[in-house]
Amino acid sequence: MGDQCALSSANDSNSGPPVAVPALRWEELPEGPVLILLDQTRLPAAEVELVCTDVQTLVGAIRSLAVRGAPVLGLAGAYGVALAAARGFDVDDAAGLLAQARPTAVNLGYGVRRAVSAHRRALASGADAEQAAAAALAEARALHAEDAEASTRMARHGLGLLEKLSPGGGYRVLTHCNTGALVSGGEGTALAVALAAHRGGLLRRLWVDETRPLLQGARLTAYEAARAGMAYTVLADNAAGSLFAAGEVDAVLIGADRIAADGSTANKVGSYPLAVLAHYHHVPFIVVAPTTTIDLDTPDGASIDIEQRPGHEVTEISFPQAPVSEAGGGMLVTPLGAQAYNPAFDVTPPELITAVVTENGVASPVSAASLAALSPPCGPGHDQVMG
Amino acid sequence: MGDQCALSSANDSNSGPPVAVPALRWEELPEGPVLILLDQTRLPAAEVELVCTDVQTLVGAIRSLAVRGAPVLGLAGAYGVALAAARGFDVDDAAGLLAQARPTAVNLGYGVRRAVSAHRRALASGADAEQAAAAALAEARALHAEDAEASTRMARHGLGLLEKLSPGGGYRVLTHCNTGALVSGGEGTALAVALAAHRGGLLRRLWVDETRPLLQGARLTAYEAARAGMAYTVLADNAAGSLFAAGEVDAVLIGADRIAADGSTANKVGSYPLAVLAHYHHVPFIVVAPTTTIDLDTPDGASIDIEQRPGHEVTEISFPQAPVSEAGGGMLVTPLGAQAYNPAFDVTPPELITAVVTENGVASPVSAASLAALSPPCGPGHDQVMG
Repeated sequence: MGDQCALSSANDSNSGPPVAVPALRWEELPEGPVLILLDQTRLPAAEVELVCTDVQTLVGAIRSLAVRGAPVLGLAGAYGVALAAARGFDVDDAAGLLAQARPTAVNLGYGVRRAVSAHRRALASGADAEQAAAAALAEARALHAEDAEASTRMARHGLGLLEKLSPGGGYRVLTHCNTGALVSGGEGTALAVALAAHRGGLLRRLWVDETRPLLQGARLTAYEAARAGMAYTVLADNAAGSLFAAGEVDAVLIGADRIAADGSTANKVGSYPLAVLAHYHHVPFIVVAPTTTIDLDTPDGASIDIEQRPGHEVTEISFPQAPVSEAGGGMLVTPLGAQAYNPAFDVTPPELITAVVTENGVASPVSAASLAALSPPCGPGHDQVMG
Repeated sequence: MGDQCALSSANDSNSGPPVAVPALRWEELPEGPVLILLDQTRLPAAEVELVCTDVQTLVGAIRSLAVRGAPVLGLAGAYGVALAAARGFDVDDAAGLLAQARPTAVNLGYGVRRAVSAHRRALASGADAEQAAAAALAEARALHAEDAEASTRMARHGLGLLEKLSPGGGYRVLTHCNTGALVSGGEGTALAVALAAHRGGLLRRLWVDETRPLLQGARLTAYEAARAGMAYTVLADNAAGSLFAAGEVDAVLIGADRIAADGSTANKVGSYPLAVLAHYHHVPFIVVAPTTTIDLDTPDGASIDIEQRPGHEVTEISFPQAPVSEAGGGMLVTPLGAQAYNPAFDVTPPELITAVVTENGVASPVSAASLAALSPPCGPGHDQVMG
């Protein structure tokens, strides 16, 4: 069962380092190992940690979006397998539960598979249960370190791309959802690029889409931007069109939950309308994601399974201070019985994406060939710029 | 001073006629005449009326969006002048306050001018104060009747256009904000067209954009759709792109707050992104508005004054049950001190608009000439279809 530990109930999110509390960390407590999550449903009002002692609690946290974002879901999957192994639960059962917790983010399954493989390899080579559990944990930690390193490299490649597309800095960047340190073992994906621009004195304004229905932009990106001292402005997603029309956006930077082999990119719902707007206004639309988000087994956008979430996320207003519950429990906004359409993600086709920035370099134009050239077989250290 | 009268606190909005309570009505009470508004900030949870005995209360109600929507703002402006005259206040002062209450909706100023002119004409022709007040009231009532008649005619023209664009019915219509009986002396503008399709058995689905930040779609359009028994589904504005991509939208129907002489249309923020999406997907984008919304004195979109509303509408979650207050008072979603960009409207250029449907007929393609041909000098009764 999970336990909660309030670190701070005051709103002190306007100062300090980019993120006060890591999104996720492993701890060896006297009563056994635990995976500790920063509960993202409570931000920015409170920094509350959620202590997972078993996989069921972790799966609940993934479903409720207490932990969310493609790269960190990979870490959660890997650490979840390690947790099951260390606590003596059935590793295959745990892996199955974790991999199915959310269908769209490819990284979740990837992290699970990495840890399961390490566990199996250890057992196959004669390790006992404890040693195999240690091997799973070592693999989760390796993935964590790789992810942090990938963030640093994506930030560098992304900033290089911005400087190439629009020399001289003064960037006004529009972003959607949350793609910073909260989704990563490092500083994130798209937001890591904006942060690098900020540190280099090149960021004029970060436009933060509030990102309905769950307000990850208004709550989480604003939280990270405020802590980092970035010049940021929150807007209703509806107002992005006015910014484009006024020439106030130099680039759109977003993350990805799954990139198909042809470059079709599933990301938080609302990304596709931004891509269409960016295309209409000749503004670069840039996807930033680690190569682990590229899924060569998914041929195209139509093959991506889009998670449909409960209608109450749209029909009810939930209090950010309270955890999101499967059963609703918020305040009804619509008439009683109103039906809602609530896909968690949408798919942007490659022809609307200016570039995909990965830790291995930049794919632009986006195509099966340019993506394949950057994908895992290349491995880190093989920086490439396609096109 | 205003007074409130709770008609119903239970949510009974799933049955009954299209709208239970008119958006606005004039009553002669023993203590003097009053203008009674249905407080739209309280819908759909409660049907509460707001009794205005003076213009200051009415201006407050207009600013807080207790009464909102272009056509009904014209009625509020005209009745407001009549109220000032009947209560013995300075009519010019009242007219100035009312006309400036919200800058973008052209109808507000139009309604004010109509009633002021009638009042002045009466005085100039020797009427006493009481007779002049009666003339202002008669003009407000005439405008009210014209608006109801215009609704009926717009619904007929709009349905004819839908049948022409996409014969056979089964329409899946996407709409934004609220454009029904709550904004009109009749059944409204865009929603009146959808309602006519529904009554004719031609409406398969009404897709209702929730319309952040103030949720007029989720709260008000859903309320009207539910009462009318329409098949409707609410969505976060971000999800509209997914519907277009899936081929689930046959037409977009929206209202207008001001149409410039060249056809540039100011409407609720989020309309322009829908127009770009509709254009990209070759879906008709149809503006429905009375000719009183066409402002031949505003040459183009750049000349339209766009109202910027307080940032707290974005940074705070307000309770629909409580009136929106100028001072905020909702629950903070963002970090403390977050800045918000909150334009109330955006502007769609004529090249993205398939047609403008008015009570006098349809302008398509949309141009200065096709709009001018439908504008007031033609008067009702001169049905035209341009292009």
